[in-house]
Amino acid sequence: MSVYDKLKALDVSLPGMTAPPAAFVPVVRTGDLLFVSGHIARKEGTPWVGQLGSTVSTDSGKEAARRTAIDLLGTLHAVTDDLDTIKQIVKVVVLVNSTPGFTEQHVVANGASEFLQEVFGAAGAHARSAFGAAQIPFGSCVEIEAIVQVR
Amino acid sequence: MSVYDKLKALDVSLPGMTAPPAAFVPVVRTGDLLFVSGHIARKEGTPWVGQLGSTVSTDSGKEAARRTAIDLLGTLHAVTDDLDTIKQIVKVVVLVNSTPGFTEQHVVANGASEFLQEVFGAAGAHARSAFGAAQIPFGSCVEIEAIVQVR
Amino acid sequence: MSVYDKLKALDVSLPGMTAPPAAFVPVVRTGDLLFVSGHIARKEGTPWVGQLGSTVSTDSGKEAARRTAIDLLGTLHAVTDDLDTIKQIVKVVVLVNSTPGFTEQHVVANGASEFLQEVFGAAGAHARSAFGAAQIPFGSCVEIEAIVQVR
Repeated sequence: MSVYDKLKALDVSLPGMTAPPAAFVPVVRTGDLLFVSGHIARKEGTPWVGQLGSTVSTDSGKEAARRTAIDLLGTLHAVTDDLDTIKQIVKVVVLVNSTPGFTEQHVVANGASEFLQEVFGAAGAHARSAFGAAQIPFGSCVEIEAIVQVR
Repeated sequence: MSVYDKLKALDVSLPGMTAPPAAFVPVVRTGDLLFVSGHIARKEGTPWVGQLGSTVSTDSGKEAARRTAIDLLGTLHAVTDDLDTIKQIVKVVVLVNSTPGFTEQHVVANGASEFLQEVFGAAGAHARSAFGAAQIPFGSCVEIEAIVQVR
Repeated sequence: MSVYDKLKALDVSLPGMTAPPAAFVPVVRTGDLLFVSGHIARKEGTPWVGQLGSTVSTDSGKEAARRTAIDLLGTLHAVTDDLDTIKQIVKVVVLVNSTPGFTEQHVVANGASEFLQEVFGAAGAHARSAFGAAQIPFGSCVEIEAIVQVR
Protein backbone atom coordinates (compact mmCIF):
# COMPACT_ATOMS: atom_id res chain seq x y z
CA MET A 1 0.00 0.00 0.00
CA SER A 2 1.60 3.27 -1.05
CA VAL A 3 1.84 6.31 1.19
CA TYR A 4 -0.72 8.04 -1.05
CA ASP A 5 -3.18 5.12 -0.66
CA LYS A 6 -2.80 5.36 3.10
CA LEU A 7 -3.36 9.12 3.06
CA LYS A 8 -6.52 8.53 0.97
CA ALA A 9 -7.70 5.84 3.40
CA LEU A 10 -7.21 8.34 6.22
CA ASP A 11 -9.12 10.96 4.16
CA VAL A 12 -6.11 13.29 4.31
CA SER A 13 -5.43 15.68 1.44
CA LEU A 14 -1.99 17.23 1.36
CA PRO A 15 -1.50 20.97 1.08
CA GLY A 16 1.22 22.36 -1.19
CA MET A 17 4.66 23.37 0.01
CA THR A 18 4.56 25.56 3.10
CA ALA A 19 6.46 28.69 2.13
CA PRO A 20 8.75 29.86 4.91
CA PRO A 21 7.61 33.19 6.35
CA ALA A 22 11.19 34.36 6.58
CA ALA A 23 14.71 34.14 5.16
CA PHE A 24 15.17 30.39 4.99
CA VAL A 25 14.12 27.39 2.89
CA PRO A 26 11.67 24.61 3.77
CA VAL A 27 14.06 21.71 3.25
CA VAL A 28 17.79 21.17 2.71
CA ARG A 29 19.11 17.84 1.46
CA THR A 30 22.56 16.55 2.37
CA GLY A 31 23.44 13.03 1.31
CA ASP A 32 20.28 10.97 1.80
CA LEU A 33 18.98 13.15 4.64
CA LEU A 34 16.38 15.88 4.35
CA PHE A 35 16.45 18.52 7.07
CA VAL A 36 12.94 19.95 7.27
CA SER A 37 12.47 23.43 8.74
CA GLY A 38 10.19 24.06 11.69
CA HIS A 39 6.55 24.13 10.51
CA ILE A 40 4.16 26.05 12.73
CA ALA A 41 0.60 24.86 13.31
CA ARG A 42 -1.98 26.46 11.03
CA LYS A 43 -5.76 26.42 10.90
CA GLU A 44 -7.50 27.55 7.71
CA GLY A 45 -4.20 28.86 6.38
CA THR A 46 -3.29 31.16 9.26
CA PRO A 47 -1.23 30.46 12.40
CA TRP A 48 -3.11 28.37 14.96
CA VAL A 49 -2.57 30.80 17.82
CA GLY A 50 -2.63 29.83 21.47
CA GLN A 51 -0.83 28.31 24.39
CA LEU A 52 -1.22 24.89 25.97
CA GLY A 53 -2.15 25.18 29.61
CA SER A 54 -4.18 28.30 28.85
CA THR A 55 -6.12 28.91 25.61
CA VAL A 56 -5.56 25.53 23.91
CA SER A 57 -6.62 22.16 25.38
CA THR A 58 -4.43 19.05 25.20
CA ASP A 59 -6.86 17.50 22.71
CA SER A 60 -6.77 20.57 20.46
CA GLY A 61 -2.98 20.70 20.75
CA LYS A 62 -2.79 17.07 19.67
CA GLU A 63 -4.98 17.87 16.66
CA ALA A 64 -2.75 20.88 15.89
CA ALA A 65 0.31 18.60 15.96
CA ARG A 66 -1.43 16.15 13.59
CA ARG A 67 -2.30 18.94 11.15
CA THR A 68 1.24 20.29 11.33
CA ALA A 69 2.55 16.83 10.42
CA ILE A 70 0.18 16.87 7.43
CA ASP A 71 1.58 20.26 6.34
CA LEU A 72 5.08 18.87 6.77
CA LEU A 73 4.17 15.92 4.50
CA GLY A 74 2.82 18.44 1.99
CA THR A 75 6.24 20.07 1.96
CA LEU A 76 7.99 16.70 1.66
CA HIS A 77 5.71 15.71 -1.23
CA ALA A 78 6.53 18.97 -3.02
CA VAL A 79 10.25 18.44 -2.50
CA THR A 80 10.53 14.70 -3.23
CA ASP A 81 7.72 14.43 -5.81
CA ASP A 82 7.14 10.95 -4.37
CA LEU A 83 6.60 10.29 -0.66
CA ASP A 84 7.21 6.58 -1.30
CA THR A 85 10.90 7.42 -1.72
CA ILE A 86 11.02 8.13 2.01
CA LYS A 87 12.98 5.36 3.69
CA GLN A 88 12.67 6.51 7.30
CA ILE A 89 11.33 9.36 9.38
CA VAL A 90 14.53 9.64 11.44
CA LYS A 91 13.89 12.35 14.01
CA VAL A 92 11.05 14.66 14.94
CA VAL A 93 11.16 17.59 17.35
CA VAL A 94 7.82 18.85 18.62
CA LEU A 95 7.78 22.25 20.33
CA VAL A 96 4.68 22.96 22.32
CA ASN A 97 3.81 26.56 23.21
CA SER A 98 3.37 25.99 26.95
CA THR A 99 2.54 27.82 30.15
CA PRO A 100 4.95 27.00 32.98
CA GLY A 101 2.33 24.62 34.41
CA PHE A 102 1.56 22.47 31.34
CA THR A 103 3.33 19.09 31.37
CA GLU A 104 1.63 17.02 28.63
CA GLN A 105 3.89 17.93 25.71
CA HIS A 106 4.29 14.20 24.98
CA VAL A 107 0.51 13.78 24.54
CA VAL A 108 0.33 16.77 22.20
CA ALA A 109 3.31 15.47 20.22
CA ASN A 110 1.62 12.10 19.80
CA GLY A 111 -0.78 13.79 17.39
CA ALA A 112 2.12 14.03 14.95
CA SER A 113 3.89 10.78 15.89
CA GLU A 114 0.78 8.58 15.61
CA PHE A 115 -0.12 10.12 12.26
CA LEU A 116 3.38 9.50 10.84
CA GLN A 117 3.24 5.85 11.92
CA GLU A 118 -0.27 5.42 10.48
CA VAL A 119 0.97 6.69 7.13
CA PHE A 120 4.47 5.22 6.95
CA GLY A 121 4.24 2.15 9.18
CA ALA A 122 7.65 1.01 10.44
CA ALA A 123 9.31 3.67 8.28
CA GLY A 124 7.40 6.23 10.34
CA ALA A 125 8.76 5.09 13.72
CA HIS A 126 11.04 7.98 14.64
CA ALA A 127 13.25 9.26 17.41
CA ARG A 128 11.62 12.25 19.06
CA SER A 129 12.01 15.07 21.51
CA ALA A 130 9.08 17.13 22.77
CA PHE A 131 9.20 20.05 25.16
CA GLY A 132 7.55 23.30 26.12
CA ALA A 133 8.63 26.47 24.32
CA ALA A 134 8.05 29.86 25.93
CA GLN A 135 6.61 31.03 22.61
CA ILE A 136 6.53 30.14 18.93
CA PRO A 137 6.63 32.45 15.88
CA PHE A 138 3.29 34.18 15.21
CA GLY A 139 2.02 32.85 18.54
CA SER A 140 1.35 29.43 17.02
CA CYS A 141 0.59 26.66 19.52
CA VAL A 142 2.88 24.00 18.02
CA GLU A 143 6.00 23.84 15.83
CA ILE A 144 7.50 20.67 14.32
CA GLU A 145 10.81 20.04 12.57
CA ALA A 146 12.11 16.74 11.18
CA ILE A 147 15.01 14.79 9.71
CA VAL A 148 13.97 12.34 7.00
CA GLN A 149 15.98 9.73 5.11
CA VAL A 150 15.21 9.11 1.44
CA ARG A 151 16.23 6.19 -0.78
CA MET B 1 40.20 0.65 29.20
CA SER B 2 36.77 -0.24 27.88
CA VAL B 3 33.70 1.91 28.43
CA TYR B 4 32.36 -0.79 30.75
CA ASP B 5 35.56 -0.72 32.85
CA LYS B 6 35.21 3.04 33.15
CA LEU B 7 31.58 2.76 34.19
CA LYS B 8 32.63 0.21 36.82
CA ALA B 9 35.41 2.48 38.06
CA LEU B 10 32.81 5.26 38.38
CA ASP B 11 30.51 2.81 40.20
CA VAL B 12 27.80 3.38 37.62
CA SER B 13 25.39 0.58 36.76
CA LEU B 14 23.39 1.03 33.59
CA PRO B 15 19.63 0.69 33.55
CA GLY B 16 17.92 -1.13 30.67
CA MET B 17 16.43 0.58 27.66
CA THR B 18 14.24 3.54 28.58
CA ALA B 19 10.89 2.76 26.96
CA PRO B 20 9.40 5.87 25.35
CA PRO B 21 6.22 6.97 27.15
CA ALA B 22 4.59 7.77 23.83
CA ALA B 23 4.37 6.96 20.12
CA PHE B 24 8.02 7.00 19.16
CA VAL B 25 11.16 4.87 19.44
CA PRO B 26 14.24 5.40 21.63
CA VAL B 27 16.81 5.41 18.82
CA VAL B 28 16.86 5.53 15.02
CA ARG B 29 19.99 4.65 13.09
CA THR B 30 20.79 6.15 9.71
CA GLY B 31 24.20 5.39 8.20
CA ASP B 32 26.64 5.42 11.12
CA LEU B 33 24.62 7.93 13.15
CA LEU B 34 22.26 7.09 16.00
CA PHE B 35 19.60 9.70 16.73
CA VAL B 36 18.63 9.26 20.37
CA SER B 37 15.22 10.49 21.53
CA GLY B 38 14.87 12.98 24.34
CA HIS B 39 15.30 11.22 27.70
CA ILE B 40 13.68 12.93 30.67
CA ALA B 41 15.34 12.97 34.08
CA ARG B 42 14.12 10.22 36.41
CA LYS B 43 14.65 9.47 40.08
CA GLU B 44 13.80 6.00 41.38
CA GLY B 45 12.09 5.19 38.11
CA THR B 46 9.67 8.10 38.02
CA PRO B 47 10.02 11.56 36.44
CA TRP B 48 12.31 13.86 38.44
CA VAL B 49 9.78 16.66 38.72
CA GLY B 50 10.70 20.30 39.27
CA GLN B 51 11.94 23.52 37.81
CA LEU B 52 15.36 25.13 38.03
CA GLY B 53 15.14 28.55 39.61
CA SER B 54 12.35 27.36 41.85
CA THR B 55 12.03 23.82 43.26
CA VAL B 56 15.34 22.35 42.00
CA SER B 57 18.79 23.75 42.84
CA THR B 58 21.58 24.06 40.29
CA ASP B 59 23.47 21.25 42.04
CA SER B 60 20.45 18.94 41.95
CA GLY B 61 19.82 19.84 38.32
CA LYS B 62 23.42 18.94 37.48
CA GLU B 63 22.95 15.59 39.20
CA ALA B 64 19.68 15.09 37.28
CA ALA B 65 21.54 15.75 34.01
CA ARG B 66 24.22 13.21 34.98
CA ARG B 67 21.61 10.56 35.79
CA THR B 68 19.80 11.28 32.53
CA ALA B 69 23.05 10.74 30.65
CA ILE B 70 23.37 7.38 32.46
CA ASP B 71 19.85 6.42 31.34
CA LEU B 72 20.76 7.48 27.82
CA LEU B 73 23.83 5.20 27.94
CA GLY B 74 21.55 2.41 29.16
CA THR B 75 19.47 2.90 26.02
CA LEU B 76 22.59 3.00 23.83
CA HIS B 77 23.91 -0.18 25.44
CA ALA B 78 20.60 -1.94 24.75
CA VAL B 79 20.62 -0.76 21.12
CA THR B 80 24.30 -1.30 20.27
CA ASP B 81 24.99 -4.30 22.53
CA ASP B 82 28.49 -2.85 22.91
CA LEU B 83 29.17 0.72 23.98
CA ASP B 84 32.77 0.34 22.79
CA THR B 85 31.45 0.51 19.23
CA ILE B 86 30.67 4.19 19.84
CA LYS B 87 33.14 6.28 17.86
CA GLN B 88 31.99 9.73 18.92
CA ILE B 89 29.32 11.46 20.94
CA VAL B 90 28.58 14.00 18.21
CA LYS B 91 25.95 16.32 19.62
CA VAL B 92 24.01 16.68 22.85
CA VAL B 93 21.07 18.98 23.53
CA VAL B 94 20.25 19.62 27.17
CA LEU B 95 16.87 21.16 27.93
CA VAL B 96 16.54 22.58 31.40
CA ASN B 97 13.07 23.18 32.86
CA SER B 98 13.66 26.82 33.87
CA THR B 99 11.90 29.75 35.43
CA PRO B 100 12.35 33.00 33.46
CA GLY B 101 15.03 34.06 35.95
CA PHE B 102 17.31 30.98 35.91
CA THR B 103 20.42 31.43 33.75
CA GLU B 104 22.74 28.52 34.68
CA GLN B 105 21.58 25.98 32.10
CA HIS B 106 25.24 25.46 31.11
CA VAL B 107 26.15 24.42 34.65
CA VAL B 108 23.25 21.97 34.82
CA ALA B 109 24.16 20.56 31.41
CA ASN B 110 27.75 19.98 32.55
CA GLY B 111 26.41 17.15 34.69
CA ALA B 112 25.84 15.22 31.48
CA SER B 113 28.80 16.56 29.51
CA GLU B 114 31.40 15.85 32.20
CA PHE B 115 30.05 12.34 32.71
CA LEU B 116 30.22 11.55 28.98
CA GLN B 117 33.83 12.71 28.83
CA GLU B 118 34.73 10.73 31.96
CA VAL B 119 33.36 7.58 30.32
CA PHE B 120 34.36 8.04 26.69
CA GLY B 121 37.42 10.32 26.91
CA ALA B 122 38.06 12.17 23.64
CA ALA B 123 35.23 10.22 22.00
CA GLY B 124 32.92 11.84 24.54
CA ALA B 125 33.84 15.44 23.63
CA HIS B 126 30.65 16.62 21.93
CA ALA B 127 29.04 19.69 20.42
CA ARG B 128 26.27 20.92 22.67
CA SER B 129 23.40 23.32 23.09
CA ALA B 130 21.73 23.99 26.42
CA PHE B 131 18.78 26.25 27.08
CA GLY B 132 15.78 26.82 29.29
CA ALA B 133 12.52 25.09 28.33
CA ALA B 134 9.20 26.46 29.60
CA GLN B 135 8.28 22.90 30.60
CA ILE B 136 9.23 19.29 29.93
CA PRO B 137 6.97 16.21 29.61
CA PHE B 138 5.70 14.95 32.98
CA GLY B 139 7.14 18.07 34.61
CA SER B 140 10.64 16.58 34.59
CA CYS B 141 13.46 19.01 35.40
CA VAL B 142 15.82 18.01 32.56
CA GLU B 143 15.59 16.37 29.11
CA ILE B 144 18.55 15.25 26.99
CA GLU B 145 18.76 14.09 23.36
CA ALA B 146 21.87 13.07 21.44
CA ILE B 147 23.43 12.17 18.12
CA VAL B 148 26.05 9.43 18.36
CA GLN B 149 28.39 8.01 15.73
CA VAL B 150 29.17 4.28 15.76
CA ARG B 151 31.93 2.37 14.02
CA MET C 1 33.76 36.11 -5.03
CA SER C 2 35.13 34.29 -2.04
CA VAL C 3 33.42 34.23 1.33
CA TYR C 4 36.24 36.40 2.68
CA ASP C 5 35.69 38.99 -0.07
CA LYS C 6 32.02 39.10 0.81
CA LEU C 7 32.77 39.51 4.50
CA LYS C 8 35.12 42.36 3.61
CA ALA C 9 32.46 43.98 1.40
CA LEU C 10 30.06 43.75 4.34
CA ASP C 11 32.77 45.27 6.57
CA VAL C 12 32.62 42.24 8.86
CA SER C 13 35.71 41.09 10.70
CA LEU C 14 35.60 37.62 12.17
CA PRO C 15 36.44 36.96 15.80
CA GLY C 16 38.49 33.92 16.75
CA MET C 17 37.05 30.64 17.91
CA THR C 18 34.41 31.07 20.59
CA ALA C 19 35.62 28.94 23.49
CA PRO C 20 32.78 26.98 25.08
CA PRO C 21 32.09 28.19 28.63
CA ALA C 22 31.56 24.61 29.76
CA ALA C 23 32.46 20.96 29.25
CA PHE C 24 31.95 20.62 25.52
CA VAL C 25 33.65 21.49 22.23
CA PRO C 26 32.66 24.14 19.66
CA VAL C 27 32.36 21.81 16.67
CA VAL C 28 32.29 18.07 16.00
CA ARG C 29 32.78 16.72 12.49
CA THR C 30 31.22 13.47 11.33
CA GLY C 31 31.55 12.59 7.65
CA ASP C 32 31.15 15.87 5.77
CA LEU C 33 28.90 17.43 8.42
CA LEU C 34 30.02 19.89 11.10
CA PHE C 35 27.77 20.05 14.16
CA VAL C 36 28.29 23.50 15.66
CA SER C 37 27.50 24.03 19.35
CA GLY C 38 25.03 26.66 20.47
CA HIS C 39 26.68 30.10 20.41
CA ILE C 40 25.15 32.70 22.71
CA ALA C 41 24.85 36.34 21.68
CA ARG C 42 27.71 38.52 22.92
CA LYS C 43 28.32 42.25 22.93
CA GLU C 44 31.85 43.51 23.52
CA GLY C 45 32.95 40.03 24.54
CA THR C 46 30.37 39.43 27.27
CA PRO C 47 26.93 37.83 27.09
CA TRP C 48 24.31 40.09 25.50
CA VAL C 49 21.87 39.84 28.37
CA GLY C 50 18.14 40.41 28.04
CA GLN C 51 14.80 39.04 27.00
CA LEU C 52 12.74 39.77 23.92
CA GLY C 53 9.35 41.17 24.82
CA SER C 54 10.89 42.94 27.78
CA THR C 55 14.41 44.43 27.89
CA VAL C 56 15.44 43.79 24.26
CA SER C 57 13.58 45.14 21.20
CA THR C 58 12.93 43.07 18.08
CA ASP C 59 15.43 45.20 16.16
CA SER C 60 18.13 44.72 18.80
CA GLY C 61 17.37 40.99 18.91
CA LYS C 62 17.80 40.80 15.15
CA GLU C 63 21.16 42.55 15.46
CA ALA C 64 22.12 40.14 18.26
CA ALA C 65 21.26 37.21 15.98
CA ARG C 66 23.39 38.69 13.20
CA ARG C 67 26.37 39.14 15.54
CA THR C 68 25.95 35.61 16.84
CA ALA C 69 26.07 34.32 13.27
CA ILE C 70 29.32 36.28 12.83
CA ASP C 71 30.77 34.63 15.95
CA LEU C 72 29.65 31.26 14.60
CA LEU C 73 31.49 31.98 11.34
CA GLY C 74 34.54 32.90 13.41
CA THR C 75 34.39 29.45 14.97
CA LEU C 76 33.89 27.80 11.56
CA HIS C 77 36.85 29.73 10.14
CA ALA C 78 39.05 28.55 13.03
CA VAL C 79 37.94 24.94 12.53
CA THR C 80 37.98 24.72 8.73
CA ASP C 81 40.84 27.18 8.07
CA ASP C 82 38.93 28.09 4.89
CA LEU C 83 35.26 29.11 4.88
CA ASP C 84 35.18 28.57 1.11
CA THR C 85 35.25 24.83 1.81
CA ILE C 86 31.71 25.17 3.15
CA LYS C 87 29.34 23.56 0.68
CA GLN C 88 26.04 24.29 2.42
CA ILE C 89 24.67 25.78 5.59
CA VAL C 90 22.30 22.86 6.19
CA LYS C 91 20.33 23.72 9.30
CA VAL C 92 20.18 26.56 11.78
CA VAL C 93 18.28 26.67 15.06
CA VAL C 94 17.71 30.10 16.58
CA LEU C 95 16.62 30.23 20.21
CA VAL C 96 15.20 33.54 21.30
CA ASN C 97 15.04 34.38 25.00
CA SER C 98 11.35 35.33 25.09
CA THR C 99 8.65 36.47 27.45
CA PRO C 100 5.40 34.48 27.08
CA GLY C 101 3.95 37.35 25.03
CA PHE C 102 6.71 37.80 22.40
CA THR C 103 5.87 36.16 19.04
CA GLU C 104 8.43 37.58 16.58
CA GLN C 105 11.14 34.93 16.94
CA HIS C 106 11.18 34.58 13.13
CA VAL C 107 12.05 38.28 12.72
CA VAL C 108 14.86 38.05 15.25
CA ALA C 109 16.18 34.89 13.58
CA ASN C 110 16.25 36.65 10.20
CA GLY C 111 19.20 38.64 11.52
CA ALA C 112 21.24 35.44 11.27
CA SER C 113 19.54 33.94 8.21
CA GLU C 114 19.86 37.04 6.05
CA PHE C 115 23.52 37.44 7.00
CA LEU C 116 24.33 33.83 6.09
CA GLN C 117 22.69 34.24 2.69
CA GLU C 118 24.49 37.55 2.10
CA VAL C 119 27.80 35.84 2.74
CA PHE C 120 27.28 32.39 1.20
CA GLY C 121 24.60 33.04 -1.44
CA ALA C 122 22.72 29.87 -2.38
CA ALA C 123 25.06 27.84 -0.16
CA GLY C 124 23.74 29.90 2.74
CA ALA C 125 20.06 29.03 2.17
CA HIS C 126 19.34 26.78 5.12
CA ALA C 127 16.55 24.90 6.84
CA ARG C 128 15.65 26.62 10.10
CA SER C 129 13.68 26.46 13.28
CA ALA C 130 13.18 29.44 15.57
CA PHE C 131 11.34 29.52 18.85
CA GLY C 132 11.13 31.16 22.23
CA ALA C 133 13.29 29.75 25.03
CA ALA C 134 12.36 30.39 28.66
CA GLN C 135 16.00 31.34 29.27
CA ILE C 136 19.46 30.98 27.76
CA PRO C 137 22.82 30.39 29.52
CA PHE C 138 24.20 33.56 31.18
CA GLY C 139 20.89 35.29 30.44
CA SER C 140 21.90 35.91 26.82
CA CYS C 141 19.08 37.08 24.53
CA VAL C 142 19.81 34.73 21.61
CA GLU C 143 21.51 31.36 21.04
CA ILE C 144 22.26 29.80 17.64
CA GLU C 145 23.42 26.31 16.67
CA ALA C 146 24.05 24.95 13.17
CA ILE C 147 24.78 21.98 10.97
CA VAL C 148 27.15 22.74 8.10
CA GLN C 149 28.28 20.60 5.17
CA VAL C 150 31.87 20.90 3.95
CA ARG C 151 33.43 19.72 0.70
